[in-house]
Amino acid sequence: METKVLNRYFELLKLESVSSDPSKLKECTQTAMWLKAFVEEMGFTVALETRDFAPPVLIAERKGENPATVLVYGHYDVQPADPLEEWKTPPFEPTVKDGRVYCRGAQDDKGQLFAFLTGVGDYLDRQSVKGLPAPTIKLCLEGQEESGSPALIKMAPDLRKRLAADVMLVCDTAAAADLRPSIVAGLRGVCHFTVKLTGVNRDLHSGEYGGVAPNAALGIARLLATLHDEKGNIRVAGFMDGIEAPSAEEIRLANESTPSKEDFRKDIGTDTVAENLAEALGFRPTIEVNGIHSGYGGAGSKTVIPAVAIAKISMRLVPGQSPRRAIDCVKRHLEEHCPAGMKVEFPEEAEGAGGFRLPIDSPVFRLAAEVLKEMDPRGAVFQWDGASIPVVSVLKEVSGASPLIVGWGQAEDRIHSPNESYGFTQFGKAREWARRILENV
Amino acid sequence: METKVLNRYFELLKLESVSSDPSKLKECTQTAMWLKAFVEEMGFTVALETRDFAPPVLIAERKGENPATVLVYGHYDVQPADPLEEWKTPPFEPTVKDGRVYCRGAQDDKGQLFAFLTGVGDYLDRQSVKGLPAPTIKLCLEGQEESGSPALIKMAPDLRKRLAADVMLVCDTAAAADLRPSIVAGLRGVCHFTVKLTGVNRDLHSGEYGGVAPNAALGIARLLATLHDEKGNIRVAGFMDGIEAPSAEEIRLANESTPSKEDFRKDIGTDTVAENLAEALGFRPTIEVNGIHSGYGGAGSKTVIPAVAIAKISMRLVPGQSPRRAIDCVKRHLEEHCPAGMKVEFPEEAEGAGGFRLPIDSPVFRLAAEVLKEMDPRGAVFQWDGASIPVVSVLKEVSGASPLIVGWGQAEDRIHSPNESYGFTQFGKAREWARRILENV
Repeated sequence: METKVLNRYFELLKLESVSSDPSKLKECTQTAMWLKAFVEEMGFTVALETRDFAPPVLIAERKGENPATVLVYGHYDVQPADPLEEWKTPPFEPTVKDGRVYCRGAQDDKGQLFAFLTGVGDYLDRQSVKGLPAPTIKLCLEGQEESGSPALIKMAPDLRKRLAADVMLVCDTAAAADLRPSIVAGLRGVCHFTVKLTGVNRDLHSGEYGGVAPNAALGIARLLATLHDEKGNIRVAGFMDGIEAPSAEEIRLANESTPSKEDFRKDIGTDTVAENLAEALGFRPTIEVNGIHSGYGGAGSKTVIPAVAIAKISMRLVPGQSPRRAIDCVKRHLEEHCPAGMKVEFPEEAEGAGGFRLPIDSPVFRLAAEVLKEMDPRGAVFQWDGASIPVVSVLKEVSGASPLIVGWGQAEDRIHSPNESYGFTQFGKAREWARRILENV
Repeated sequence: METKVLNRYFELLKLESVSSDPSKLKECTQTAMWLKAFVEEMGFTVALETRDFAPPVLIAERKGENPATVLVYGHYDVQPADPLEEWKTPPFEPTVKDGRVYCRGAQDDKGQLFAFLTGVGDYLDRQSVKGLPAPTIKLCLEGQEESGSPALIKMAPDLRKRLAADVMLVCDTAAAADLRPSIVAGLRGVCHFTVKLTGVNRDLHSGEYGGVAPNAALGIARLLATLHDEKGNIRVAGFMDGIEAPSAEEIRLANESTPSKEDFRKDIGTDTVAENLAEALGFRPTIEVNGIHSGYGGAGSKTVIPAVAIAKISMRLVPGQSPRRAIDCVKRHLEEHCPAGMKVEFPEEAEGAGGFRLPIDSPVFRLAAEVLKEMDPRGAVFQWDGASIPVVSVLKEVSGASPLIVGWGQAEDRIHSPNESYGFTQFGKAREWARRILENV
């Protein structure tokens, strides 16, 4: 990679654009400003749109001579870095080791986005030399994807005209094993909320009150234990209603692109994973507990009966489920199963977006498959990704574009975890993909 | 209260003697030094005994002319102050309001201990004026009671001679409602351990892995939910074996001294408390979860599958249960119920001590009842306290003394909770009790 590109990449990574932390709004804004300057150099006309003290949304356009219009979506915000003590190098200090860059956001999505934009630059450089007609290119880069994109989703209806396009390119997903190209044919939706369980009016002495007072730590445990049965099946009434089952062809293709159980077990270090990996990840919803906190957690002991417990709950959704209904079902379930003497509340919530699946024989997918075959003789696989880019469903509707979601992540990147990284080979693929697909639109 | 006494009390409270926090060892040692100077002024010969980097144990003696020997036990360590944000005044800055002193340790046990020692001083002053023969008074004041007294329990067998006494006075418990005097006829034992549950090898992205990877936050919830049935009854095999049932007379007396359900509900702010309060608190064991921590707990969301969860577990024990066996039963239960794909470990443990009950018609109890009747025409009630002073069982055996446990706490003191306090009236009672019982031994 050229030194100039590497320096720019590192500048971008050092900005601590954690969208879920309100105290990092300044860093998020700086990141948007940085991107604005970067794409202005490539000839884009740029506006930063803000709403409700959210990180700015960058909307940009570069008019082309070719009648086609391409929309590029990406996000510049990153996950929080904690647990900090598990990072081997500082989380916002990019560090190169064995052909990889270690940093929060090295991949998701600052790294993939920056590689893709670098490829857009490569295309424009060549195109100007060759004098070929370029398509109109639009950019929509936001800073709240990791928090469910509330501001962009809110402003989206007003952006119909400015975002109207034929194809929407998204580089925020993983390739298949061994970096085999992958086209995402479906994404799960996501929504989340916080549950707060309150028992007594203060933390109590476990001797003076133990055996008679309700315990919020034990209460949250008993409450969350009701969400699934022993086999992990969801037990929430109404939650699974209306789910659209995948076709036999979708299941066959999804199985092809899903790592083996053996690889999966090795990757995550456990001997137990679900049956039917591809189906569980691509076509079935989840209710996950992302955190539980209650009472004492330090060294030694503190013999209290905790008064309060909180849990962070998120759901991955599949076509046929609406986020609103899914949240309501789980909340109702928790209210109905609230332990005696306690009170359940929901102080935070984000509706996110539903999941979607795309027809696998569309013209856009056929074109992408050809381009990817040129890049890699193995050709592309289709993936139904278990993850979510809630805003993609929204932008799909608003822009009228066909989503073309091709990313170059790998499991070893450890996105959302400590020691996130992105390999130079992957960076090169994302960059090449951007250039090639623009050459063929 | 005399200014001199109040100043001394505040000096003692300001020392942050949190024994469970190894970084506070210096403050604990300073507190022991402070007490050493304080009791030397009263004519005691003092030694500070240390073991294994634990806060020092203060052993002191003041020889008397009377053949009786009285041992006074107390502790100068306090509970951690967290959650800090719930304190209305700084936790280690004693603050007087409406006849009460607010501070961590204002009551438990620096406040009660200091009031008692002030009463010992009052007795010695009067006795020297009147020329009456005083008993030999021994002190055993330690700094690890809130952590299960490991150092003192370890050194106790070597202290048989130095602690030998006829009566052991302990001022570390509560009076009955409306400050009616109370003699503790039984204490529950206590022991605790930490459980750590590990699922995968790192926090995972809940989209990329949700539905197939085991979730430690959900796992700890499901695991802890197996400890009790829906009604709160303990479901751990072997845990309840061998428990000594109380006599009808003990139950009758315990009911007399236990607050009403109505008072209890008001005190702790919940509409649900156990049936048979007196029995549940005095004669039945518990398994409590003092804390659960796993995954994300901040603002917004972080859609991870947590790799690790910890829970702090403590048990209150009754006669017939050994701490070793109780811990082993619960650990075995947790191992047997460990969710698939996860690993359960126990990184910390403290055996503490078992519970005990004393015969209610002993000569010492009859004497105490007379003295307390002089102090309060309502006379004393007997209490079977749900709390624990593990070291008392050990000192009872080592010293050969009959425990006489009379304290002046009240529910409003909120010991172990934020905004702990102690009333001047209560302080005066503890002080008067010390003087009067010494006059009558």
